[in-house]
Amino acid sequence: MLRPVNLLDAANAAKALFEYVPVGMCNGQALHVLQAENRTLDFHAHEESDELFYVLEGEFALELDDGLVPLRQGDLIVVPRGTRHRPVCTSLVKCLLMERGGTLNPGNTGGSYISKEPT
Amino acid sequence: MLRPVNLLDAANAAKALFEYVPVGMCNGQALHVLQAENRTLDFHAHEESDELFYVLEGEFALELDDGLVPLRQGDLIVVPRGTRHRPVCTSLVKCLLMERGGTLNPGNTGGSYISKEPT
Repeated sequence: MLRPVNLLDAANAAKALFEYVPVGMCNGQALHVLQAENRTLDFHAHEESDELFYVLEGEFALELDDGLVPLRQGDLIVVPRGTRHRPVCTSLVKCLLMERGGTLNPGNTGGSYISKEPT
Repeated sequence: MLRPVNLLDAANAAKALFEYVPVGMCNGQALHVLQAENRTLDFHAHEESDELFYVLEGEFALELDDGLVPLRQGDLIVVPRGTRHRPVCTSLVKCLLMERGGTLNPGNTGGSYISKEPT
């Protein structure tokens, strides 16, 4: 039997900030949740994948070359492949991320990536 | 400048139940929100695409060949391609759906599909 995952519960179960907790795959897209706070990442781009951000709780901003995009709870945004961006997190935020599986690694996530293997 | 979309606001702006409101694309995956209530769809399967369901507000159940999977607010589930399923909606539910772009049509959505072109 298929089982659902509650995204906020999964984010709350993360053991550290910026821990990418895997919550599923869909058509080759990797789904992760994470918590972030009090950190501005380095600008980076994913040349081979769009990247989706969805705010489960809290708020943050995505900085692009042309400015900051504020994101609140319930907001979804898709950063097109090749677009320079960086998350700017002040208060605690819990997010869903999605990108083509295999895209994220420590070299292309602005200094944030901490992998967590599926349990 | 990229703009976010608030998923619950987009679902609330639907003009009818089962209206698939497009909210974006990510790596060829089509994202829609919709409202549903008081309807059990026909069993169907998508042979070429997994399908993601995420509950924005309310609750419903997915019926599979081996039984009902209850889904509450904040729950996410991915139905693998080729898997027979049908949503069972009693009370009002607002959902995000995702599948490979071009997958959904009136013949493979259990009798629910109402298209809405992007505005």
